[in-house]
Amino acid sequence: MNQIITLGREFGSGGREVGKRLAELLGYAYYDKEIVAEISKRTQLAESYVRQIVEKKPHIFYPITTGHSMHDESPDYLLRQYNTIYAEQAKVITEMAEKSPCVIVGRCADYILKDMKPLRLFIYADDDTKLVRCRNTADLNENIPDNKMRRKIKKINKNRARYYNYYTGRNWGDRTNYDICVNTSLITPKEAAELLAGLIKGRETAEQ
Amino acid sequence: MNQIITLGREFGSGGREVGKRLAELLGYAYYDKEIVAEISKRTQLAESYVRQIVEKKPHIFYPITTGHSMHDESPDYLLRQYNTIYAEQAKVITEMAEKSPCVIVGRCADYILKDMKPLRLFIYADDDTKLVRCRNTADLNENIPDNKMRRKIKKINKNRARYYNYYTGRNWGDRTNYDICVNTSLITPKEAAELLAGLIKGRETAEQ
Repeated sequence: MNQIITLGREFGSGGREVGKRLAELLGYAYYDKEIVAEISKRTQLAESYVRQIVEKKPHIFYPITTGHSMHDESPDYLLRQYNTIYAEQAKVITEMAEKSPCVIVGRCADYILKDMKPLRLFIYADDDTKLVRCRNTADLNENIPDNKMRRKIKKINKNRARYYNYYTGRNWGDRTNYDICVNTSLITPKEAAELLAGLIKGRETAEQ
Repeated sequence: MNQIITLGREFGSGGREVGKRLAELLGYAYYDKEIVAEISKRTQLAESYVRQIVEKKPHIFYPITTGHSMHDESPDYLLRQYNTIYAEQAKVITEMAEKSPCVIVGRCADYILKDMKPLRLFIYADDDTKLVRCRNTADLNENIPDNKMRRKIKKINKNRARYYNYYTGRNWGDRTNYDICVNTSLITPKEAAELLAGLIKGRETAEQ
């Protein structure tokens, strides 16, 4: 069976960097935004719409207006659409994991692939570290005060948690669901990636 | 400043083995039972009595009868004694950390030494793994059924949590208090030690 690494991460923790570096160090495939692109292709829904859905718990009582749900915005229709996207996501992720060793970021992959016994990582950071890291990234480097930025980070992470908890029945970020949790406040994402690559390489050598 | 590694661990997780191996791999001092022995020497209280106290939250309404508190078993006296032992423990741990690079197991060391910015580890495991590991150790390898053994493990860990939470105002095992948390269900204590040693060695090399 392929060595699969799933990586849950707090927004602002540098988790994506950890995953990318880790995949590079190991020569593994890396899946992050590629998952959304593939779901979009298969469901014929816009990428931006899929992205919005796969990080939030379904809000069935507050229909979201998008170009893709203009025909029917009833709670039932929207819930079906959320669930269709989740099912498609599970299929895409399973296919990716079966293809080759890989690192899969977010999207309940640890739960979806539980029978393949992936190495389950969770990357997090202190609030101050997350703030500084977000200030240094292009996405959120807006001219807004710190307290507003902190609220924004908190909200994104709350949405990730609600989405994960809804579909898995587990608690996002609860260490008991993971094999290794790394706080990137003291340890840099580069160090975290090297540390984790060392573990996997050690296992590969031991198996040979 | 010395590189200090503090290691919190669930009973049954193999955390002590991780700590011991890590100290060996790094050539660091290792402190575990040595802390209790030192407190005992300084306070003139029996080691067994000190050991019993440093893993439990003070129970001031249920005086414990021991050879050392026969003169006065009032709640006030006992609480003073608990706190004296905690203060002595903090002193001993600080002295150890100032002496040389070291691995310190349990005993709120992560909190006591917070100003020295130690690398804070937490080692845990799934319930089944803890049961198997306890069956394989001498201490708890008693002829009792699994469910009783599970309750025993749970109780010991509950006491560790209550002690830690009481003296630190934090939550024992909550990942936000640690830099790396390792689940020794999939990863062996040996692998965990090697993984962590790699990180520290990388840092030492980078500093040179």
